[in-house]
Amino acid sequence: MKTPGFQFEVLHADGAARRGRLSTPHGTVDTPAFMPVGTHGSVKGLTAEEVAATGAQVMLANTYHLWLRPGADVVNALGSLHAFTRWPRTMLTDSGGFQVFSLASLRKIDDDGVTFRSHVDGAMCRLTPEGSIRIQATLGADIAMAFDECPAGDADRATVESAVARTTRWAQRCLATPRREGQALFGIVQGGTHVDLRHAHLAEIAAMDFDGIALGGLSVGEETAAMHEVLAEVAPTMPAARPRYLMGVGAPRDLIAGVLAGIDMFDCVLPTRNARNGQALTWHGRANIKQSRNQRSDAPIDSQCDGPCCTTGYSRGYLRHLFMGGEMVALRVLSLHNLYFLGALMRGMRSAIEAGRVRAWADETLTRMREGDELGPADDVPPSPKS
Amino acid sequence: MKTPGFQFEVLHADGAARRGRLSTPHGTVDTPAFMPVGTHGSVKGLTAEEVAATGAQVMLANTYHLWLRPGADVVNALGSLHAFTRWPRTMLTDSGGFQVFSLASLRKIDDDGVTFRSHVDGAMCRLTPEGSIRIQATLGADIAMAFDECPAGDADRATVESAVARTTRWAQRCLATPRREGQALFGIVQGGTHVDLRHAHLAEIAAMDFDGIALGGLSVGEETAAMHEVLAEVAPTMPAARPRYLMGVGAPRDLIAGVLAGIDMFDCVLPTRNARNGQALTWHGRANIKQSRNQRSDAPIDSQCDGPCCTTGYSRGYLRHLFMGGEMVALRVLSLHNLYFLGALMRGMRSAIEAGRVRAWADETLTRMREGDELGPADDVPPSPKS
Repeated sequence: MKTPGFQFEVLHADGAARRGRLSTPHGTVDTPAFMPVGTHGSVKGLTAEEVAATGAQVMLANTYHLWLRPGADVVNALGSLHAFTRWPRTMLTDSGGFQVFSLASLRKIDDDGVTFRSHVDGAMCRLTPEGSIRIQATLGADIAMAFDECPAGDADRATVESAVARTTRWAQRCLATPRREGQALFGIVQGGTHVDLRHAHLAEIAAMDFDGIALGGLSVGEETAAMHEVLAEVAPTMPAARPRYLMGVGAPRDLIAGVLAGIDMFDCVLPTRNARNGQALTWHGRANIKQSRNQRSDAPIDSQCDGPCCTTGYSRGYLRHLFMGGEMVALRVLSLHNLYFLGALMRGMRSAIEAGRVRAWADETLTRMREGDELGPADDVPPSPKS
Repeated sequence: MKTPGFQFEVLHADGAARRGRLSTPHGTVDTPAFMPVGTHGSVKGLTAEEVAATGAQVMLANTYHLWLRPGADVVNALGSLHAFTRWPRTMLTDSGGFQVFSLASLRKIDDDGVTFRSHVDGAMCRLTPEGSIRIQATLGADIAMAFDECPAGDADRATVESAVARTTRWAQRCLATPRREGQALFGIVQGGTHVDLRHAHLAEIAAMDFDGIALGGLSVGEETAAMHEVLAEVAPTMPAARPRYLMGVGAPRDLIAGVLAGIDMFDCVLPTRNARNGQALTWHGRANIKQSRNQRSDAPIDSQCDGPCCTTGYSRGYLRHLFMGGEMVALRVLSLHNLYFLGALMRGMRSAIEAGRVRAWADETLTRMREGDELGPADDVPPSPKS
């Protein structure tokens, strides 16, 4: 809470939902905010300029990936993360923990840290709370994340309890490690779908001197209803003066549930990953460009969208043709559309909070999304993929 | 020469080199011009807006590819090629012949046409001169190409003579087939590297009522010196009042040789294909972004380039990192850079012709390109790949 250059204020409240503003050394972020994920220092398929044009004000980069390749020292030598990635606005790095637990092999965890094999070249690596903070300091994002233990979505209660206890011990070590000047640090609350564990862990993390508090370990394979229950029970009780960040969530339905519960920040690879599978997010639910009904369609992806992909003559027929032929431009356009859509979704929620009608806005929007459109049936929103 | 809406004038001459202007129903084209190739209706990795920003005023699309997928009728239903591809300027389609001879299998040629298996789904297809013109009429480019027989670069003289004779017979059939209103038609001169055959075939094709004349069957595996000899001997004798098009050529050295010999139009997939292999075209020769010396380099791809990739903070180190990680943005940036470079090369030659010093400009530029730069040794310019 004392990091110089870092500020957060809540401008409006509407039920549990909040309309706020985050300030960092690289600009302001209107919240609730969706943060596009630049796994390797680039949001897949898109330039920094295009990402900014979707309304994004903060980008996330993955510590694990950049540490393994090209190395944090290389990023630092090239001017640190902002210059390296050409993203001049606020940046956030995760701790690397989630990728260690989900991507690396031969993972061995002990109280000091985690030893694992790199998924890139098989090299043995070790990450500790202190190491994660040092790497994040070298990368140079505006916001760093504490190194936590993130159990799988189907872990039993004892495993979750152990991860919670270890995450608390590691949180203290993260806070005790020197950071880059002006770099904020967020703590992470674990506890799976156990509301009582969540509350207890939140109390521990909230008592520490973190600049913001995140909910980790959600959208990792659990039932959507269980995640929404945790959100509704726990998020409103998070410290009001600090930003609240729901990690790894990006499906429209879950973003809406999170905002209604009082979450301020989200990140997910869903918009770009789904694009690479041909899926478009629209105001009428998910759509798949591959469907043969699009072959001769001169309609845009989403006739209700005012974004750069739906107002400049890209027909569904052309995009389907390019997608089926493996042309990069199809992936670019769908990725840009999906990020623009999430930007518009967040802008819609911010306006609705200011107008005091976010619950009605959410009901209308969810109803419309469930109706589906000409592009295809109203699929359920998919579980959020991770990078 | 009588196609309404189609005009060509030579504005300046400097030796054999010409500075001209082509007018079509979709705009003017300053020549000498390089035409980016949108194989499936999209220049690989780039939007139509980006292609236009490199200075390109005409785009080529491949009849063979679009005929097989999505089908010429689909393109027509979606507003024909200009609306389909969102390219509002001049478009040219090839005849499909080159791809039939280079991509299709079980190819069987007879005097009426070619029967072959589609490389997409193995279906038996047949293309004739009349069929090619009809497909091109349906696609709707401003300039169509005659259907020719293009022998391999190592074909013997008898095979080349046979292809020349057949190409002449097919040229007459192409001219006799109705085209889309306002669509120009170019004839193609074959003859391999045999200067006498080239001259004889040129006389036949030039006597026909084509709006422009192309040299086909070059850059198909023959020695560079042999191609340059054909250019120097044949190109200056092509009809002066009509545009001269050298097909499938895009290496800087060959573009310069072509312009000096009086060629007005070129096309090649080289700039985008080389980009996908990590190669950048620069004023100091070819460079490869993959080289480890680029790992910590904060220099742009080409410090002498004033294009959108070299003046906006893309470091070699960042591009190398993205390229090694398979990130699309690296392919985008290198593709855009290479196309911009060729656009700048053509602008440089047009200015030099206007100033009456294109030979000196060519000598200076070729010397600089042979010197190489920090990015790597001054490789020979590679043979031009085809799509």
